[in-house]
Amino acid sequence: MADRLRCAVIGTGAFGFDHLSSLQSCPRATTVAVADSNTARAREATERFKIPRSYSDYMELLEQADIDAVTIAVPTHLHAPVAIEALKARKHVLLEKPMAMNAKEAAKIVETATKMRRTLMVAQQFRFNKQTQMARQVIQRGDLGDIYHARCFWLRRCGIPRIGSWFTQKKLAGGGVVLDLGVHALDTCLHLLNEFDVTCVFAQSHARFGSRGVGEMNWGKSEIDPGKPFDVEDYGTAMLRLKSGRTVNFEVSWAGHQPADGREHGVDVLGTQGGLSLYPAKLYRGGPSGYETIQLANLKVPYQEDRIHHFVASVLEGKKPMVAMEESLKVQQVLDAINASAASGREVRLA
Amino acid sequence: MADRLRCAVIGTGAFGFDHLSSLQSCPRATTVAVADSNTARAREATERFKIPRSYSDYMELLEQADIDAVTIAVPTHLHAPVAIEALKARKHVLLEKPMAMNAKEAAKIVETATKMRRTLMVAQQFRFNKQTQMARQVIQRGDLGDIYHARCFWLRRCGIPRIGSWFTQKKLAGGGVVLDLGVHALDTCLHLLNEFDVTCVFAQSHARFGSRGVGEMNWGKSEIDPGKPFDVEDYGTAMLRLKSGRTVNFEVSWAGHQPADGREHGVDVLGTQGGLSLYPAKLYRGGPSGYETIQLANLKVPYQEDRIHHFVASVLEGKKPMVAMEESLKVQQVLDAINASAASGREVRLA
Amino acid sequence: MADRLRCAVIGTGAFGFDHLSSLQSCPRATTVAVADSNTARAREATERFKIPRSYSDYMELLEQADIDAVTIAVPTHLHAPVAIEALKARKHVLLEKPMAMNAKEAAKIVETATKMRRTLMVAQQFRFNKQTQMARQVIQRGDLGDIYHARCFWLRRCGIPRIGSWFTQKKLAGGGVVLDLGVHALDTCLHLLNEFDVTCVFAQSHARFGSRGVGEMNWGKSEIDPGKPFDVEDYGTAMLRLKSGRTVNFEVSWAGHQPADGREHGVDVLGTQGGLSLYPAKLYRGGPSGYETIQLANLKVPYQEDRIHHFVASVLEGKKPMVAMEESLKVQQVLDAINASAASGREVRLA
Amino acid sequence: MADRLRCAVIGTGAFGFDHLSSLQSCPRATTVAVADSNTARAREATERFKIPRSYSDYMELLEQADIDAVTIAVPTHLHAPVAIEALKARKHVLLEKPMAMNAKEAAKIVETATKMRRTLMVAQQFRFNKQTQMARQVIQRGDLGDIYHARCFWLRRCGIPRIGSWFTQKKLAGGGVVLDLGVHALDTCLHLLNEFDVTCVFAQSHARFGSRGVGEMNWGKSEIDPGKPFDVEDYGTAMLRLKSGRTVNFEVSWAGHQPADGREHGVDVLGTQGGLSLYPAKLYRGGPSGYETIQLANLKVPYQEDRIHHFVASVLEGKKPMVAMEESLKVQQVLDAINASAASGREVRLA
Repeated sequence: MADRLRCAVIGTGAFGFDHLSSLQSCPRATTVAVADSNTARAREATERFKIPRSYSDYMELLEQADIDAVTIAVPTHLHAPVAIEALKARKHVLLEKPMAMNAKEAAKIVETATKMRRTLMVAQQFRFNKQTQMARQVIQRGDLGDIYHARCFWLRRCGIPRIGSWFTQKKLAGGGVVLDLGVHALDTCLHLLNEFDVTCVFAQSHARFGSRGVGEMNWGKSEIDPGKPFDVEDYGTAMLRLKSGRTVNFEVSWAGHQPADGREHGVDVLGTQGGLSLYPAKLYRGGPSGYETIQLANLKVPYQEDRIHHFVASVLEGKKPMVAMEESLKVQQVLDAINASAASGREVRLA
Repeated sequence: MADRLRCAVIGTGAFGFDHLSSLQSCPRATTVAVADSNTARAREATERFKIPRSYSDYMELLEQADIDAVTIAVPTHLHAPVAIEALKARKHVLLEKPMAMNAKEAAKIVETATKMRRTLMVAQQFRFNKQTQMARQVIQRGDLGDIYHARCFWLRRCGIPRIGSWFTQKKLAGGGVVLDLGVHALDTCLHLLNEFDVTCVFAQSHARFGSRGVGEMNWGKSEIDPGKPFDVEDYGTAMLRLKSGRTVNFEVSWAGHQPADGREHGVDVLGTQGGLSLYPAKLYRGGPSGYETIQLANLKVPYQEDRIHHFVASVLEGKKPMVAMEESLKVQQVLDAINASAASGREVRLA
Repeated sequence: MADRLRCAVIGTGAFGFDHLSSLQSCPRATTVAVADSNTARAREATERFKIPRSYSDYMELLEQADIDAVTIAVPTHLHAPVAIEALKARKHVLLEKPMAMNAKEAAKIVETATKMRRTLMVAQQFRFNKQTQMARQVIQRGDLGDIYHARCFWLRRCGIPRIGSWFTQKKLAGGGVVLDLGVHALDTCLHLLNEFDVTCVFAQSHARFGSRGVGEMNWGKSEIDPGKPFDVEDYGTAMLRLKSGRTVNFEVSWAGHQPADGREHGVDVLGTQGGLSLYPAKLYRGGPSGYETIQLANLKVPYQEDRIHHFVASVLEGKKPMVAMEESLKVQQVLDAINASAASGREVRLA
Repeated sequence: MADRLRCAVIGTGAFGFDHLSSLQSCPRATTVAVADSNTARAREATERFKIPRSYSDYMELLEQADIDAVTIAVPTHLHAPVAIEALKARKHVLLEKPMAMNAKEAAKIVETATKMRRTLMVAQQFRFNKQTQMARQVIQRGDLGDIYHARCFWLRRCGIPRIGSWFTQKKLAGGGVVLDLGVHALDTCLHLLNEFDVTCVFAQSHARFGSRGVGEMNWGKSEIDPGKPFDVEDYGTAMLRLKSGRTVNFEVSWAGHQPADGREHGVDVLGTQGGLSLYPAKLYRGGPSGYETIQLANLKVPYQEDRIHHFVASVLEGKKPMVAMEESLKVQQVLDAINASAASGREVRLA
């Protein structure tokens, strides 16, 4: 393999541009191509980031021998097909989140990566955030004692992704806020707990804003294409029990008339000797004069903060990435169980 | 009946003193007696509040013909026996919370009150709080549109009631934080929703602080009488589904290493047109310039803020008190279901 | 002197009732009389608190030989005349704040107390608050290193005392918010710094709400008696330089369209090794993992939390009270200087 | 003039890179050159941003005829010399803040720009921030009524720029936090008030952290070159009186043991009908149900959010930039007066 990883980006929407920007600032990567069926958008990408080649068909891109790895930023319903083809073409793959439409697809991706012996990493950027890394470090060094409960949440007051886009259609996105924001909340939480084995899920959800065409921006009405429905949930909550006996409360919303002054997105981890919360990273404990809150600052962290730089380094060094594909698969299974429980109104047991 | 309600207080602990103080400032009540098996404490009460008579046996007090009503502030395991005797003695009863050790006992109390045609009111003081009354008024006038979800919580960082006292023993208190703080969180929430019919409960709980003798004050160690165990939960959480399809998240802790800067105790109610949170009472909604938060202030409220003044007035005027005993019974049933679900690890269906 | 201090209360408004309530719960005091020219109000006091005697003329009360001490809760313009007569009648005096209309009057009171060898204490209740006592203790033990700056403030969003009452008339109250709330903010701050020697004051003030008849409650209009003006400031700010070189920022408002979510009333003290803020009492410092915030809890505090209990004990034990009259005089001098600087638009130097 | 403004960047430190990034995303600009005496750094800039030419001497750059405008990001002591030479070379100038070492230098720059008829704009980025623009719009449309007072502040708990760098040396930076953060706080505040005529200043300052080599990061000790002193203030506060009678409180710190949970940097504007605060932009007012707080969102704003895009457009369209150079000069005069008052301990009057 060359000194620099030769990369290509499939999908040049907002996330694709973000991948291109990360790759450009990465001294160990070269970006050789992009692919997008929207050729105007692909051209804009090549001009702005001076990319040599562009393909309207990602299959053609995957045939190129001088590409070592691809980063995939396409709508969720294309995750599995594109990732599987890329892996089959022997490309290492960085895949945007959520991993797939469901755990069945996700398992297929993992299986292909294993068979083809390629690196597969889901782009869970919040794990790389310095606050998260400091938090995990403090947990790993044992400051919290025995951890028994956690909360994870992302509660937007008014932040549905563009209504009528693929984000709000079940057949293109796989689901609503539970997948879109929930994958971050849950992945970060289980990563902090360092435990991905969930045994029982009880969940509930609602669709109260997007379905009326509000909750996108400033509570105003969006232009909705009648042919492009909003058929997903915009609120979801769940309780999880883990194999170890720990419990987790989970809550996400794209929109809701609720307090938003404090933390909109975060995790709380409760232990016998201390507690920890994100964002920002704060440690709670008892002390001789009273309750102590330590806002973590400037702890040295083990990983680069850019997920794509980490992916590039993992491939070049032949190391397993921090976001293990097996963990991402388990996160997808739990999200599926949350959706199933919310739909049935019953608890769901996982193996 | 006399112009003034002739009252007596059974139990002269901290809550009994609080009842005496309320009664003294109530122009429609006269306090004629107290009862407590702890005669020193009863004497202190009579001296401080100039109460004419004192009894060491509450049964003797209940025999007195010049007593119209009693307020009961004794440990939970005595709630049902004392309340039932008082009702049988034809006294109107104000009963401290939680209503009883369990719903079976609570049902017996309600049955007796009904049979004896006496007023029975559980002293849910948070319903009388001006903030709660303003909140309920704004909800009742329709500002929230269609309500679909609520959260209720009381999350103390370090506040277990005296470890080793009756509060932390299952056979005397009926349970731990789920009953002690949970009865407030749940009662206020269902009162705001104006719906007490819960159909499904899924709950989880932990005992991680009191069982180690910490979490009472300043994280120090309490003197624990080895014969007086801490055998209750100090953390509990639940998800509820209501008959209407609304959902409720519930979470309480006596102790926990967790964020405590913001609201320790409160309720959020989420509706399609607006949201509301306690404490203090704030209304959330969308507006032409952005997100609006209105901190309620000085709305005229329908009830007196002192629960005991309200009880006295209800009896004298022959009106049903704001806290209906049927509602208190349903709250007790849900708390029982929370404890049952936490114990079994399974969802619990209510009729 | 008797075992119990024989006390009387002059003035039976809201503050007088508060004095009576404190005295009643004080095991070392007996309340023998009240005085008020409003005889209906005096009667209400005697009935509620079972006080044996009542006087419509405070001079008559002061003639009674069986009264050791008086607490004075009358409008500010009467502070000096009543306190001086009481001291001359050899009564110990607890005086409501602000001490007097101005420093000249205050000096006269101190002079009389000194000459008559009586205890005089201004009722600065915030010094007795447990949070303040814990804060001062942590400062006194040196946790802050070298203190160089402090802020003190009380910023109400909507809280002018009844417009048209004596509170808002210069000739009866001596001034507006600078005296009314400023005396608390300033006294607490200088007490924490343990330094009362201010050398330079620069101040500014405004009257923008009360003068329009708003800012009292819910921004509504008050019924203003045209003969009873609002002729005082409702906003004031100042910068102070202390003898030691320390600086203090001061800001108070009765009303103002401003953020009010956080601390409305408090003090910040900045030192080289740590900082401290009220309310509640929090200590700030650096630590190995980041910024530490310690919310003080349950430190043993040296003084009783009730100012009147402390006054009673000071007199009975012949000890100087925690609020030294010389300090209260200096606080009054600084408040006068703030008013003078705001009026002249120039800095004011104090000796 | 060409279709696109031909720009060059003088100074390729962190701020120079920021200018280059803004210019690259600006469709109306082309970046043709950079200059820096540090040739390694200049080379890094040309490679990363594909800039055709690089000069080690800015005078040589200024001689180039194909450059229409320069953006200047050099240490403060070089602002006046470089800006004046650039203007004399007939280049339009965007100048980093603070404008100059003092008002005398600033006046010279303005004079040269006027004489040479070139556009000069100080890069006050906070004016362009969407929150600031929304705030100003709400003020301009009259929501606040009569404005009488404002506060502006930037209170870092631990954020001294690299100790020992030019930032902390008076002869290179002109001063400490009063210039560095104060120029933002003051400029934004006076811009919101739309009034730059200050008539009186009273100020105080301290140097308590940098002088000990702490306060930079995590309260650790910095490596200080003994030959490169920290000889500036790290805390400053002032009270201002404006021509209109309005008053302003100003407070800035690079380091301080103080509350930092809330707003570290912001402005409050108090008016008779409403108030406004930054950051984020919130409007406060009274309403029928209580206090209303409106978090501004998605108001259309008149200016681009990128200050450099605005500068480019102003030059190309021959319009006066939003940050008028006369305003920047007045801001510099007030900052000088703050430093002078802090040094003398006396109020300073401005013409």
